[in-house]
Amino acid sequence: MREVAVIGVGMTRFGELWDMSLRDLFVEAAQKALKDAGTDTLDSMYVGNMSAGQFVGQEHLGPMMAEQLGVAGVPAARVESACASGGMALRSAFLEVASGMSDLVLAAGVEKMTDGADVTAVLATASDQENEVYYGVTFPGLYAMIARAHMAKYGTTEEDLSWVSVKAHRNGARNPHAQFRRPVTLEEVMGSSLLAEPLRMLHSSPVTDGAAAVLLCPLERAKEFGGQPVKVLASGAATSTLALADRKELADLDVVELSARRAYEMAGLGPQNIHVAEVHDCFSIAEICCYEALGFVERGKGKDAAREGVTDLGGRIPVNPSGGLKAKGHPVGATGVAQAVTLVEQLRGEAGDLQVEGARIALAQNMGGSGASSVVHIFQGV
Amino acid sequence: MREVAVIGVGMTRFGELWDMSLRDLFVEAAQKALKDAGTDTLDSMYVGNMSAGQFVGQEHLGPMMAEQLGVAGVPAARVESACASGGMALRSAFLEVASGMSDLVLAAGVEKMTDGADVTAVLATASDQENEVYYGVTFPGLYAMIARAHMAKYGTTEEDLSWVSVKAHRNGARNPHAQFRRPVTLEEVMGSSLLAEPLRMLHSSPVTDGAAAVLLCPLERAKEFGGQPVKVLASGAATSTLALADRKELADLDVVELSARRAYEMAGLGPQNIHVAEVHDCFSIAEICCYEALGFVERGKGKDAAREGVTDLGGRIPVNPSGGLKAKGHPVGATGVAQAVTLVEQLRGEAGDLQVEGARIALAQNMGGSGASSVVHIFQGV
Repeated sequence: MREVAVIGVGMTRFGELWDMSLRDLFVEAAQKALKDAGTDTLDSMYVGNMSAGQFVGQEHLGPMMAEQLGVAGVPAARVESACASGGMALRSAFLEVASGMSDLVLAAGVEKMTDGADVTAVLATASDQENEVYYGVTFPGLYAMIARAHMAKYGTTEEDLSWVSVKAHRNGARNPHAQFRRPVTLEEVMGSSLLAEPLRMLHSSPVTDGAAAVLLCPLERAKEFGGQPVKVLASGAATSTLALADRKELADLDVVELSARRAYEMAGLGPQNIHVAEVHDCFSIAEICCYEALGFVERGKGKDAAREGVTDLGGRIPVNPSGGLKAKGHPVGATGVAQAVTLVEQLRGEAGDLQVEGARIALAQNMGGSGASSVVHIFQGV
Repeated sequence: MREVAVIGVGMTRFGELWDMSLRDLFVEAAQKALKDAGTDTLDSMYVGNMSAGQFVGQEHLGPMMAEQLGVAGVPAARVESACASGGMALRSAFLEVASGMSDLVLAAGVEKMTDGADVTAVLATASDQENEVYYGVTFPGLYAMIARAHMAKYGTTEEDLSWVSVKAHRNGARNPHAQFRRPVTLEEVMGSSLLAEPLRMLHSSPVTDGAAAVLLCPLERAKEFGGQPVKVLASGAATSTLALADRKELADLDVVELSARRAYEMAGLGPQNIHVAEVHDCFSIAEICCYEALGFVERGKGKDAAREGVTDLGGRIPVNPSGGLKAKGHPVGATGVAQAVTLVEQLRGEAGDLQVEGARIALAQNMGGSGASSVVHIFQGV
């Protein structure tokens, strides 16, 4: 396989962006990534998007976005794996460069969620329509069951969940791209409305419009471009059962562990080598599961990490310095790419108020559904 | 790049399959491909699907289908490029094997179209929602405009279109997988209902349920498996404008020519080397455009090819021996993979009544929308 580098990154602000369409979002992020790389061309592209067909009545985003970007003609396809669509688009772009088929390949994720669709119903189509949705379960309910299982197995409490949200908002407050730029207190989190017991509003990521893009090329060509390249050390993907009821163990999100193991093996590294991570905290419980599944802490110790500051900026292993899905926002198809953008900025030392000092190796974990798919990428500054 | 081979193929019957769900369809095709290859395992998979979210309320088909197939855990993603979703899924699988990331990679396309959704409205989301659909255009209308432009530029007639349908049904009648297994006469085609002038019902592919699957591996490992491998010589993809109104030239489907040129260059071959082809005849006019854009005949001569028997079984360059989308059926996400299945059977000499004698090199062309995306694969018997 050819070695692959990120040579450009860009993203929109995340939020309820009433004045921006699906096209606008995509083009802003993609143009920023091209500009960041100092090029105005590319050879191929992948669009990470979960549900534009349902959200805004538009499929076929590959050619649409290539044309909007002014590069009609290049190969372009959409990649979908629910909320892991962005991460899987990045993986497809990585494989295309690694294969030798193309040199300059864009991976860009986009989602326009605030145009009037029934967002909860659309998101539910990422779970099992016949065996879950039909019986009335939505994603807050599914992750509430995961939280209950984690509480039963490891003694995790509602306060443990809440400290993750407090950390997310503290970081998000410093992130100029974040949807929520204000800190919240433990009391505010624990006093927020219940969505699905034990999960509350402030344990949950919001509905968000946004886009993010990264431009890849062979590592050996990276120096031709202006900026400081970042090497993609590994890509690991995995799946599990779509329906939670078919899973042997609810509390552990095994899919995250399997995708991470593949990435660690490919990189020849382990969790002890990671300096900073962005993980898929669609609900606070997911971040706690990720701490454990990624090997940052032992099984059962995830509940303590945020409270004890282990995953804070300045902690042993900073997780979600961007504010994560909780505070930065979660435009589902864009999230996996936005994680990569954040981490590339970290590895370049360009993360401003969110900079993790000395970060040289970074990990992104992006999840689909209630843990039915997961993809992990590991990056290294060069 | 590693050389890549097809080692297993399988497909369902195409038709209105009321007794089969999206899962059933996928699993039947995928299991047939695995059985054909003589293996019960795989390393990674891609699902080609246009719109299960809209058709049956189910996104996230990667993990769902991996689980249904009994291989939960493997990386799996959905690839979408409207009616070219199957071809682009095949391309993704090809790139993953070529890159060295994985050995046994499944590409399977599936679409369940007859479960009650407004099919015309769902398909229309592959065109430009804001600039075409909003004004009332649907796909018969878009291809009618392409037909009108072709008629104006090259003198193509309604009878020319109709001979393509006659050929399609003559072939489809011999194909055990086809939705329509009866020949039609020129008079029947020209007397069928108008959909969008000059296109009639029998110039148009039907609404279809179905699935198709191919299993790929590195060519150097192909001999480990039971059957006769087929080499994937090339994959070429291209895009054009999403909206027809933004296209410089309506009559020529330039996207097909560009995707073919990339594939021919990669294979080191030209149209004169192709012994049999499957092309995307969603409407008869599209097949005529493809004859020209793929270089099988000169520009402007496509109208004569079916009438003169050039593209018949036994003709100079047999096109759509399967019956094509018109007679075999068009489950949109499955079509591109089904083309590959048909051609692998041809190159193995297993095509039965549809066999093209001496076929050693074959070409598949799969289109998205009104020619906004196209992907061409070239295969060689080994």
